[in-house]
Amino acid sequence: MPHRSTVHEVLIAVFQVRTFIAGQPPELGVLLWQRALDPDKGSWSLPGGVLEDDEDLSTSARRQLAEKVDVRTVAHLEQLSIFSDPDRVPGSRRIASNFLGLVPIYSEPKLPSDTAWHPVARLPRTSFDHGTVVLHARNRLVAKLSYTNIAFALAPVEFAMSTLREIYAAALGYQVDATNLGRVLGRRKVVEPTGRTSPSGKSGGRPPALYRFTESSLRVTDEFAALRPPS
Amino acid sequence: MPHRSTVHEVLIAVFQVRTFIAGQPPELGVLLWQRALDPDKGSWSLPGGVLEDDEDLSTSARRQLAEKVDVRTVAHLEQLSIFSDPDRVPGSRRIASNFLGLVPIYSEPKLPSDTAWHPVARLPRTSFDHGTVVLHARNRLVAKLSYTNIAFALAPVEFAMSTLREIYAAALGYQVDATNLGRVLGRRKVVEPTGRTSPSGKSGGRPPALYRFTESSLRVTDEFAALRPPS
Repeated sequence: MPHRSTVHEVLIAVFQVRTFIAGQPPELGVLLWQRALDPDKGSWSLPGGVLEDDEDLSTSARRQLAEKVDVRTVAHLEQLSIFSDPDRVPGSRRIASNFLGLVPIYSEPKLPSDTAWHPVARLPRTSFDHGTVVLHARNRLVAKLSYTNIAFALAPVEFAMSTLREIYAAALGYQVDATNLGRVLGRRKVVEPTGRTSPSGKSGGRPPALYRFTESSLRVTDEFAALRPPS
Repeated sequence: MPHRSTVHEVLIAVFQVRTFIAGQPPELGVLLWQRALDPDKGSWSLPGGVLEDDEDLSTSARRQLAEKVDVRTVAHLEQLSIFSDPDRVPGSRRIASNFLGLVPIYSEPKLPSDTAWHPVARLPRTSFDHGTVVLHARNRLVAKLSYTNIAFALAPVEFAMSTLREIYAAALGYQVDATNLGRVLGRRKVVEPTGRTSPSGKSGGRPPALYRFTESSLRVTDEFAALRPPS
Protein backbone atom coordinates (compact mmCIF):
# COMPACT_ATOMS: atom_id res chain seq x y z
CA MET A 1 0.00 0.00 0.00
CA PRO A 2 1.46 3.43 -0.87
CA HIS A 3 2.02 5.51 2.23
CA ARG A 4 0.90 9.08 2.75
CA SER A 5 3.70 11.45 3.74
CA THR A 6 4.20 11.20 7.50
CA VAL A 7 6.25 13.47 9.72
CA HIS A 8 7.42 12.56 13.19
CA GLU A 9 7.50 15.45 15.66
CA VAL A 10 8.29 15.94 19.32
CA LEU A 11 6.26 18.11 21.70
CA ILE A 12 7.58 19.00 25.15
CA ALA A 13 5.33 20.01 28.05
CA VAL A 14 7.64 21.92 30.42
CA PHE A 15 6.13 22.57 33.85
CA GLN A 16 7.19 24.81 36.70
CA VAL A 17 5.41 25.71 39.95
CA ARG A 18 5.30 29.54 39.90
CA THR A 19 3.51 32.50 41.39
CA PHE A 20 1.09 33.85 38.78
CA ILE A 21 -0.99 36.12 41.06
CA ALA A 22 0.90 38.09 43.72
CA GLY A 23 -0.18 37.16 47.24
CA GLN A 24 -1.75 33.89 46.07
CA PRO A 25 -0.22 30.39 46.43
CA PRO A 26 1.96 29.27 43.50
CA GLU A 27 0.35 27.32 40.64
CA LEU A 28 1.53 24.79 38.07
CA GLY A 29 2.61 26.59 34.89
CA VAL A 30 3.45 25.35 31.41
CA LEU A 31 5.78 26.92 28.84
CA LEU A 32 4.04 27.95 25.57
CA TRP A 33 4.99 30.10 22.55
CA GLN A 34 2.60 32.12 20.43
CA ARG A 35 2.38 31.45 16.68
CA ALA A 36 3.09 34.62 14.68
CA LEU A 37 2.02 32.95 11.41
CA ASP A 38 -0.61 30.56 10.15
CA PRO A 39 -1.57 27.77 10.62
CA ASP A 40 -3.58 28.89 13.63
CA LYS A 41 -1.87 32.30 14.00
CA GLY A 42 -2.14 33.75 17.52
CA SER A 43 -2.69 30.37 19.21
CA TRP A 44 -0.23 29.05 21.80
CA SER A 45 1.96 25.98 21.08
CA LEU A 46 4.20 23.63 23.00
CA PRO A 47 7.95 23.78 22.23
CA GLY A 48 8.90 21.12 19.70
CA GLY A 49 9.15 20.34 16.02
CA VAL A 50 10.16 17.79 13.44
CA LEU A 51 12.51 14.88 14.19
CA GLU A 52 15.59 15.16 11.95
CA ASP A 53 17.19 12.22 10.15
CA ASP A 54 20.31 12.02 12.28
CA GLU A 55 18.83 12.32 15.78
CA ASP A 56 16.83 10.14 18.10
CA LEU A 57 13.77 11.48 19.95
CA SER A 58 15.58 12.50 23.16
CA THR A 59 18.25 14.37 21.21
CA SER A 60 15.55 16.08 19.16
CA ALA A 61 13.58 17.05 22.28
CA ARG A 62 16.66 18.65 23.88
CA ARG A 63 17.57 20.48 20.66
CA GLN A 64 14.08 21.89 20.13
CA LEU A 65 13.63 22.78 23.78
CA ALA A 66 16.88 24.79 23.61
CA GLU A 67 15.20 27.13 21.12
CA LYS A 68 12.71 28.24 23.79
CA VAL A 69 14.41 27.88 27.18
CA ASP A 70 17.85 27.41 28.74
CA VAL A 71 17.82 23.62 28.96
CA ARG A 72 20.27 23.67 31.87
CA THR A 73 17.31 24.77 33.98
CA VAL A 74 15.33 21.63 33.01
CA ALA A 75 16.00 19.24 35.91
CA HIS A 76 14.10 16.27 34.42
CA LEU A 77 13.07 15.31 30.90
CA GLU A 78 11.34 12.07 29.96
CA GLN A 79 9.34 10.59 27.13
CA LEU A 80 5.62 10.13 27.69
CA SER A 81 3.24 8.58 25.16
CA ILE A 82 2.67 9.12 21.46
CA PHE A 83 -0.30 10.90 19.87
CA SER A 84 -0.89 9.05 16.60
CA ASP A 85 -4.46 9.83 15.51
CA PRO A 86 -4.16 10.04 11.67
CA ASP A 87 -6.13 13.34 11.70
CA ARG A 88 -4.66 15.05 14.75
CA VAL A 89 -3.38 18.00 12.64
CA PRO A 90 -4.46 19.29 9.20
CA GLY A 91 -2.27 18.44 6.16
CA SER A 92 0.49 15.82 6.24
CA ARG A 93 0.19 13.24 8.95
CA ARG A 94 2.19 14.18 12.08
CA ILE A 95 2.90 11.56 14.72
CA ALA A 96 3.78 13.36 17.98
CA SER A 97 6.07 11.94 20.67
CA ASN A 98 5.34 13.81 23.87
CA PHE A 99 7.90 14.64 26.54
CA LEU A 100 7.56 15.88 30.09
CA GLY A 101 10.07 18.52 31.28
CA LEU A 102 10.33 19.97 34.80
CA VAL A 103 11.94 23.21 35.99
CA PRO A 104 12.52 23.83 39.74
CA ILE A 105 10.55 26.53 41.54
CA TYR A 106 12.23 29.99 41.81
CA SER A 107 14.39 29.32 38.72
CA GLU A 108 13.84 32.15 36.19
CA PRO A 109 15.13 30.95 32.80
CA LYS A 110 15.42 33.67 30.14
CA LEU A 111 12.69 33.24 27.49
CA PRO A 112 12.37 34.48 23.89
CA SER A 113 9.79 37.24 23.33
CA ASP A 114 7.20 34.85 21.84
CA THR A 115 7.36 32.49 24.86
CA ALA A 116 5.68 32.68 28.28
CA TRP A 117 4.55 30.62 31.28
CA HIS A 118 0.79 30.04 31.57
CA PRO A 119 -1.12 28.52 34.48
CA VAL A 120 -2.32 25.05 33.49
CA ALA A 121 -5.65 25.82 35.16
CA ARG A 122 -6.20 28.81 32.82
CA LEU A 123 -4.69 27.96 29.44
CA PRO A 124 -4.98 30.47 26.59
CA ARG A 125 -6.23 29.28 23.17
CA THR A 126 -3.89 26.40 22.27
CA SER A 127 -2.86 25.11 18.81
CA PHE A 128 -4.22 21.84 17.34
CA ASP A 129 -4.35 19.20 20.13
CA HIS A 130 -1.67 20.87 22.28
CA GLY A 131 -4.14 21.62 25.08
CA THR A 132 -4.90 17.90 25.32
CA VAL A 133 -1.17 17.12 25.33
CA VAL A 134 -0.67 19.55 28.25
CA LEU A 135 -3.45 17.93 30.30
CA HIS A 136 -2.19 14.43 29.49
CA ALA A 137 1.33 15.39 30.65
CA ARG A 138 -0.07 17.02 33.81
CA ASN A 139 -2.00 13.81 34.59
CA ARG A 140 1.17 11.74 34.16
CA LEU A 141 3.04 14.14 36.48
CA VAL A 142 0.30 13.77 39.12
CA ALA A 143 0.48 9.97 38.87
CA LYS A 144 4.27 9.95 39.10
CA LEU A 145 4.18 12.19 42.19
CA SER A 146 2.35 9.34 43.90
CA TYR A 147 4.91 6.56 43.37
CA THR A 148 8.25 8.18 42.47
CA ASN A 149 10.62 10.89 43.73
CA ILE A 150 9.88 13.09 40.66
CA ALA A 151 9.22 16.15 42.86
CA PHE A 152 13.02 16.58 43.14
CA ALA A 153 12.81 18.31 39.74
CA LEU A 154 10.17 20.82 40.92
CA ALA A 155 11.82 21.66 44.27
CA PRO A 156 14.78 23.89 45.18
CA VAL A 157 17.99 22.20 46.39
CA GLU A 158 17.05 22.87 50.04
CA PHE A 159 13.57 23.65 51.28
CA ALA A 160 11.33 23.95 54.31
CA MET A 161 8.57 21.31 54.35
CA SER A 162 6.00 24.13 53.96
CA THR A 163 7.56 24.97 50.58
CA LEU A 164 7.45 21.35 49.44
CA ARG A 165 3.82 21.22 50.51
CA GLU A 166 3.07 24.23 48.29
CA ILE A 167 4.81 22.54 45.34
CA TYR A 168 2.83 19.30 45.76
CA ALA A 169 -0.46 21.20 46.21
CA ALA A 170 0.17 23.24 43.04
CA ALA A 171 1.06 20.19 40.95
CA LEU A 172 -1.71 17.95 42.35
CA GLY A 173 -4.41 20.64 42.34
CA TYR A 174 -5.51 19.99 45.92
CA GLN A 175 -4.18 20.64 49.43
CA VAL A 176 -1.85 18.25 51.23
CA ASP A 177 -0.76 18.30 54.86
CA ALA A 178 2.92 19.28 55.38
CA THR A 179 3.42 17.13 58.50
CA ASN A 180 1.96 14.03 56.86
CA LEU A 181 3.90 14.70 53.62
CA GLY A 182 7.18 15.04 55.53
CA ARG A 183 6.54 11.85 57.48
CA VAL A 184 5.72 9.76 54.36
CA LEU A 185 8.59 11.11 52.26
CA GLY A 186 11.02 10.69 55.16
CA ARG A 187 9.95 7.09 55.84
CA ARG A 188 10.42 6.26 52.15
CA LYS A 189 13.84 7.96 52.22
CA VAL A 190 12.79 10.33 49.43
CA VAL A 191 13.80 13.41 51.46
CA GLU A 192 16.18 13.85 54.39
CA PRO A 193 16.97 16.73 56.79
CA THR A 194 20.05 18.77 55.89
CA GLY A 195 20.70 19.57 59.56
CA ARG A 196 20.31 23.27 58.79
CA THR A 197 17.41 25.63 59.40
CA SER A 198 15.99 28.37 57.20
CA PRO A 199 17.81 31.68 57.91
CA SER A 200 14.57 33.61 58.32
CA GLY A 201 11.51 32.06 59.98
CA LYS A 202 8.19 33.75 59.28
CA SER A 203 6.74 36.04 61.98
CA GLY A 204 9.64 35.49 64.38
CA GLY A 205 8.82 31.84 65.16
CA ARG A 206 11.32 29.00 65.37
CA PRO A 207 13.22 28.85 62.02
CA PRO A 208 12.00 25.79 60.07
CA ALA A 209 14.24 22.77 59.40
CA LEU A 210 15.58 22.43 55.85
CA TYR A 211 15.31 19.25 53.81
CA ARG A 212 16.74 17.96 50.52
CA PHE A 213 15.90 15.11 48.13
CA THR A 214 18.19 12.10 48.60
CA GLU A 215 18.45 11.60 44.84
CA SER A 216 18.22 13.75 41.73
CA SER A 217 17.21 11.14 39.19
CA LEU A 218 13.88 9.41 38.86
CA ARG A 219 13.18 6.21 40.78
CA VAL A 220 10.13 4.31 41.95
CA THR A 221 10.12 4.97 45.69
CA ASP A 222 7.22 2.95 46.61
CA GLU A 223 7.70 -0.71 45.77
CA PHE A 224 5.58 -3.21 47.61
CA ALA A 225 7.91 -4.29 50.41
CA ALA A 226 7.04 -7.90 49.54
CA LEU A 227 8.47 -7.43 46.06
CA ARG A 228 11.87 -5.95 46.82
CA PRO A 229 14.69 -8.00 45.35
CA PRO A 230 16.72 -9.96 47.91
CA SER A 231 19.66 -7.80 49.09
CA MET B 1 16.20 19.82 4.89
CA PRO B 2 15.09 16.85 2.71
CA HIS B 3 14.02 13.91 4.82
CA ARG B 4 15.16 10.34 4.39
CA SER B 5 12.31 7.86 4.03
CA THR B 6 11.08 6.93 7.49
CA VAL B 7 8.70 4.13 8.43
CA HIS B 8 6.85 3.92 11.72
CA GLU B 9 6.39 0.41 13.07
CA VAL B 10 4.91 -1.18 16.17
CA LEU B 11 6.49 -4.08 18.08
CA ILE B 12 4.56 -5.97 20.74
CA ALA B 13 6.23 -7.91 23.56
CA VAL B 14 3.56 -10.40 24.70
CA PHE B 15 4.39 -12.15 27.96
CA GLN B 16 2.87 -15.16 29.69
CA VAL B 17 3.99 -17.11 32.76
CA ARG B 18 4.24 -20.72 31.52
CA THR B 19 5.80 -24.07 32.32
CA PHE B 20 8.72 -24.59 29.95
CA ILE B 21 10.39 -27.52 31.73
CA ALA B 22 8.08 -30.19 33.20
CA GLY B 23 8.41 -30.45 36.96
CA GLN B 24 10.10 -27.03 37.23
CA PRO B 25 8.41 -23.79 38.38
CA PRO B 26 6.81 -21.72 35.61
CA GLU B 27 8.88 -19.01 33.88
CA LEU B 28 8.15 -15.75 32.09
CA GLY B 29 7.77 -16.42 28.35
CA VAL B 30 7.59 -14.10 25.35
CA LEU B 31 5.85 -14.69 22.01
CA LEU B 32 8.22 -14.70 18.99
CA TRP B 33 7.95 -15.73 15.32
CA GLN B 34 10.78 -17.06 13.18
CA ARG B 35 11.70 -15.24 9.96
CA ALA B 36 11.50 -17.58 6.96
CA LEU B 37 13.13 -14.99 4.67
CA ASP B 38 15.89 -12.42 4.77
CA PRO B 39 16.64 -9.96 6.27
CA ASP B 40 18.04 -12.05 9.10
CA LYS B 41 16.41 -15.33 8.03
CA GLY B 42 16.02 -17.82 10.89
CA SER B 43 16.14 -15.20 13.63
CA TRP B 44 13.18 -14.68 15.97
CA SER B 45 11.08 -11.49 15.86
CA LEU B 46 8.44 -9.78 17.94
CA PRO B 47 4.93 -9.55 16.46
CA GLY B 48 4.41 -6.20 14.76
CA GLY B 49 4.86 -4.29 11.54
CA VAL B 50 4.28 -1.02 9.75
CA LEU B 51 1.75 1.57 10.90
CA GLU B 52 -0.82 2.11 8.13
CA ASP B 53 -2.13 5.53 7.10
CA ASP B 54 -5.62 5.15 8.50
CA GLU B 55 -4.84 3.70 11.95
CA ASP B 56 -3.39 4.98 15.20
CA LEU B 57 -0.73 3.01 17.08
CA SER B 58 -3.09 1.10 19.37
CA THR B 59 -5.28 0.02 16.45
CA SER B 60 -2.18 -1.05 14.54
CA ALA B 61 -0.82 -3.00 17.51
CA ARG B 62 -4.09 -4.93 17.89
CA ARG B 63 -4.30 -5.61 14.15
CA GLN B 64 -0.74 -6.90 13.89
CA LEU B 65 -0.98 -8.91 17.07
CA ALA B 66 -4.06 -10.65 15.65
CA GLU B 67 -1.85 -12.15 12.91
CA LYS B 68 0.09 -14.13 15.54
CA VAL B 69 -2.24 -14.80 18.46
CA ASP B 70 -5.94 -14.74 19.39
CA VAL B 71 -6.07 -11.20 20.80
CA ARG B 72 -9.03 -12.08 23.00
CA THR B 73 -6.51 -13.90 25.20
CA VAL B 74 -4.48 -10.70 25.69
CA ALA B 75 -5.77 -9.33 29.00
CA HIS B 76 -3.72 -6.12 28.95
CA LEU B 77 -2.05 -4.11 26.18
CA GLU B 78 -0.28 -0.79 26.68
CA GLN B 79 2.19 1.43 24.90
CA LEU B 80 5.71 1.57 26.30
CA SER B 81 8.50 3.77 24.92
CA ILE B 82 9.78 4.41 21.41
CA PHE B 83 13.05 3.15 19.96
CA SER B 84 14.22 5.91 17.62
CA ASP B 85 17.96 5.40 17.07
CA PRO B 86 18.42 6.43 13.39
CA ASP B 87 20.44 3.24 12.73
CA ARG B 88 18.45 0.69 14.74
CA VAL B 89 17.72 -1.40 11.60
CA PRO B 90 19.48 -1.56 8.22
CA GLY B 91 17.91 0.26 5.22
CA SER B 92 15.10 2.82 5.59
CA ARG B 93 14.78 4.40 8.99
CA ARG B 94 12.24 2.58 11.20
CA ILE B 95 10.95 4.24 14.36
CA ALA B 96 9.51 1.55 16.62
CA SER B 97 6.71 2.10 19.12
CA ASN B 98 6.84 -0.71 21.64
CA PHE B 99 3.84 -2.25 23.35
CA LEU B 100 3.51 -4.58 26.33
CA GLY B 101 0.92 -7.38 26.10
CA LEU B 102 0.01 -9.85 28.86
CA VAL B 103 -1.69 -13.26 28.61
CA PRO B 104 -2.99 -15.02 31.77
CA ILE B 105 -1.32 -18.21 32.96
CA TYR B 106 -2.92 -21.52 31.80
CA SER B 107 -4.44 -19.85 28.70
CA GLU B 108 -3.32 -21.73 25.57
CA PRO B 109 -3.96 -19.49 22.56
CA LYS B 110 -3.64 -21.20 19.17
CA LEU B 111 -0.47 -20.05 17.39
CA PRO B 112 0.59 -20.07 13.72
CA SER B 113 3.32 -22.59 12.83
CA ASP B 114 6.07 -19.93 12.72
CA THR B 115 5.25 -18.66 16.23
CA ALA B 116 6.23 -19.98 19.67
CA TRP B 117 6.70 -19.03 23.33
CA HIS B 118 10.30 -18.69 24.52
CA PRO B 119 11.57 -18.26 28.08
CA VAL B 120 12.82 -14.68 28.50
CA ALA B 121 15.79 -16.06 30.44
CA ARG B 122 16.88 -18.17 27.45
CA LEU B 123 16.03 -16.24 24.28
CA PRO B 124 16.95 -17.71 20.89
CA ARG B 125 18.81 -15.53 18.35
CA THR B 126 16.58 -12.44 17.98
CA SER B 127 16.21 -10.11 14.97
CA PHE B 128 17.73 -6.59 14.91
CA ASP B 129 17.23 -4.97 18.35
CA HIS B 130 14.24 -7.15 19.30
CA GLY B 131 16.14 -8.81 22.15
CA THR B 132 16.70 -5.38 23.70
CA VAL B 133 13.03 -4.53 23.22
CA VAL B 134 12.05 -7.74 25.07
CA LEU B 135 14.32 -6.94 28.02
CA HIS B 136 13.14 -3.33 28.14
CA ALA B 137 9.50 -4.50 28.22
CA ARG B 138 10.30 -7.09 30.91
CA ASN B 139 11.92 -4.35 33.04
CA ARG B 140 8.84 -2.15 32.67
CA LEU B 141 6.63 -5.11 33.69
CA VAL B 142 8.78 -5.68 36.80
CA ALA B 143 8.54 -1.99 37.73
CA LYS B 144 4.77 -1.94 37.21
CA LEU B 145 4.32 -5.06 39.37
CA SER B 146 5.70 -2.95 42.23
CA TYR B 147 3.20 -0.08 42.14
CA THR B 148 0.16 -1.21 40.14
CA ASN B 149 -2.32 -4.09 39.96
CA ILE B 150 -0.92 -5.22 36.56
CA ALA B 151 -0.61 -8.84 37.75
CA PHE B 152 -4.37 -9.21 37.13
CA ALA B 153 -3.45 -9.78 33.48
CA LEU B 154 -1.01 -12.61 34.28
CA ALA B 155 -3.26 -14.42 36.79
CA PRO B 156 -6.27 -16.73 36.35
CA VAL B 157 -9.69 -15.39 37.37
CA GLU B 158 -9.49 -17.22 40.72
CA PHE B 159 -6.29 -18.47 42.31
CA ALA B 160 -4.67 -19.80 45.47
CA MET B 161 -2.07 -17.41 46.89
CA SER B 162 0.61 -20.04 46.14
CA THR B 163 -0.22 -19.72 42.42
CA LEU B 164 -0.01 -15.93 42.54
CA ARG B 165 3.35 -16.27 44.31
CA GLU B 166 4.61 -18.43 41.42
CA ILE B 167 3.44 -15.84 38.90
CA TYR B 168 5.18 -12.97 40.71
CA ALA B 169 8.37 -15.02 41.16
CA ALA B 170 8.46 -15.91 37.45
CA ALA B 171 7.89 -12.32 36.31
CA LEU B 172 10.25 -10.74 38.85
CA GLY B 173 12.98 -13.36 38.52
CA TYR B 174 13.35 -13.94 42.27
CA GLN B 175 11.40 -15.62 45.05
CA VAL B 176 8.67 -13.85 47.03
CA ASP B 177 6.88 -15.03 50.16
CA ALA B 178 3.21 -16.00 49.60
CA THR B 179 2.04 -14.92 53.08
CA ASN B 180 3.70 -11.53 52.81
CA LEU B 181 2.45 -11.06 49.24
CA GLY B 182 -1.13 -11.88 50.25
CA ARG B 183 -0.97 -9.49 53.19
CA VAL B 184 0.37 -6.57 51.12
CA LEU B 185 -2.00 -7.08 48.17
CA GLY B 186 -4.95 -7.53 50.54
CA ARG B 187 -4.15 -4.37 52.50
CA ARG B 188 -3.91 -2.40 49.26
CA LYS B 189 -7.23 -3.89 48.13
CA VAL B 190 -5.58 -5.31 44.98
CA VAL B 191 -6.88 -8.84 45.69
CA GLU B 192 -9.77 -10.11 47.81
CA PRO B 193 -10.93 -13.55 48.96
CA THR B 194 -13.71 -15.11 46.86
CA GLY B 195 -15.05 -17.00 49.89
CA ARG B 196 -14.39 -20.28 48.08
CA THR B 197 -11.59 -22.81 48.46
CA SER B 198 -9.69 -24.78 45.85
CA PRO B 199 -11.51 -28.08 45.11
CA SER B 200 -8.32 -30.14 45.52
CA GLY B 201 -5.72 -29.26 48.13
CA LYS B 202 -2.29 -30.73 47.55
CA SER B 203 -1.31 -33.82 49.61
CA GLY B 204 -4.62 -33.96 51.45
CA GLY B 205 -4.10 -30.80 53.53
CA ARG B 206 -6.67 -28.08 54.14
CA PRO B 207 -7.90 -26.81 50.72
CA PRO B 208 -6.40 -23.35 50.08
CA ALA B 209 -8.57 -20.21 49.99
CA LEU B 210 -9.20 -18.72 46.55
CA TYR B 211 -8.62 -15.05 45.72
CA ARG B 212 -9.42 -12.76 42.81
CA PHE B 213 -8.23 -9.31 41.65
CA THR B 214 -10.65 -6.54 42.61
CA GLU B 215 -10.20 -4.83 39.23
CA SER B 216 -9.29 -5.88 35.71
CA SER B 217 -7.88 -2.64 34.39
CA LEU B 218 -4.60 -1.02 35.29
CA ARG B 219 -4.40 1.38 38.22
CA VAL B 220 -1.69 2.69 40.51
CA THR B 221 -2.41 0.89 43.75
CA ASP B 222 0.18 2.43 45.83
CA GLU B 223 -0.27 6.20 46.09
CA PHE B 224 1.41 7.91 49.00
CA ALA B 225 -1.45 8.10 51.51
CA ALA B 226 -0.55 11.77 52.01
CA LEU B 227 -1.29 12.49 48.36
CA ARG B 228 -4.73 10.96 47.95
CA PRO B 229 -7.27 13.45 46.64
CA PRO B 230 -9.83 14.58 49.22
CA SER B 231 -12.86 12.27 49.07
